[in-house]
Amino acid sequence: MRVIGIDPGLRNLGWGVIDVAGSRLTHVANGICHSAPSDNDGDLALRLVSLHSQLTDVLRTYAPDTAAVEHTFVNKDAVATLKLGQARGIALLVPGQFGLTVGEYAPNAVKKTVVGVGHAAKQQVDHMVRLHLPGVTINGPDAADALAIAICHAHHMQSAGRLQAALKRAAG
Amino acid sequence: MRVIGIDPGLRNLGWGVIDVAGSRLTHVANGICHSAPSDNDGDLALRLVSLHSQLTDVLRTYAPDTAAVEHTFVNKDAVATLKLGQARGIALLVPGQFGLTVGEYAPNAVKKTVVGVGHAAKQQVDHMVRLHLPGVTINGPDAADALAIAICHAHHMQSAGRLQAALKRAAG
Repeated sequence: MRVIGIDPGLRNLGWGVIDVAGSRLTHVANGICHSAPSDNDGDLALRLVSLHSQLTDVLRTYAPDTAAVEHTFVNKDAVATLKLGQARGIALLVPGQFGLTVGEYAPNAVKKTVVGVGHAAKQQVDHMVRLHLPGVTINGPDAADALAIAICHAHHMQSAGRLQAALKRAAG
Repeated sequence: MRVIGIDPGLRNLGWGVIDVAGSRLTHVANGICHSAPSDNDGDLALRLVSLHSQLTDVLRTYAPDTAAVEHTFVNKDAVATLKLGQARGIALLVPGQFGLTVGEYAPNAVKKTVVGVGHAAKQQVDHMVRLHLPGVTINGPDAADALAIAICHAHHMQSAGRLQAALKRAAG
């Protein structure tokens, strides 16, 4: 099964694709969709169109079976949260348009799964992503976060799968 | 020229289309794109896909030349602001995908243009929208807000047009 993780952001939207076979994870690809601000009117709509188009290309190229997006908050201010929300709208929309279910995980849940503790430092997450996916070349911190989200989603689905299998055995 | 105004919201996304000829405004259509919450996993992505598809149908049907979206904040809490941002992402994306420029207006700017004061009550906005667009049937408050945004955008473009015409005359 192929999983895409997405770390939403208006300027840098990270994505990471992994293959999952049993408990074995393999790196497929990772990268960042960029949309730089400009001074033009109607700029924000164009940036969202660009993110949508870039992320659509990623899903078309790597054809994941399921997706996960970080469920994050910016409590700094409403302007930053609104901006993030707009990028997050695109991050959820695109896999939805491909008919995928989209899991959502809080940053602490991602860290807890990948590192073992909820309040891990960024370097620790990066380190553990490299340990999970040997030989991976990571295209920046947003792509590392996206791979961490994909790993988290893979683990949660495996646990859910094991649980369902156990329930089936108990019932059968 | 045909203008669409959009009042973004995840549950109710209002839209209103008007025709502008000189200073004459004519109502074309208005309505609301709904996306109800459910208890399913991956629900948010499906709601955004549904909003995207409904709003795309509206733009395909009425083929506006330009668009405007309310630039609003919810300062209540980060969760509400993030939700609004996600819906707003779709409201900006769709006209952008049709190649339209998308104007953004703060709620007070919309009220000031339509009613004359920035802190007008909702009923006053509704009343003035009906006065601007005689005989209009409005499909609820979110559609009324969307029509107000369209009227605001029409006025601002006319002022910009008049200014450019005056500058041309002065230069010529």
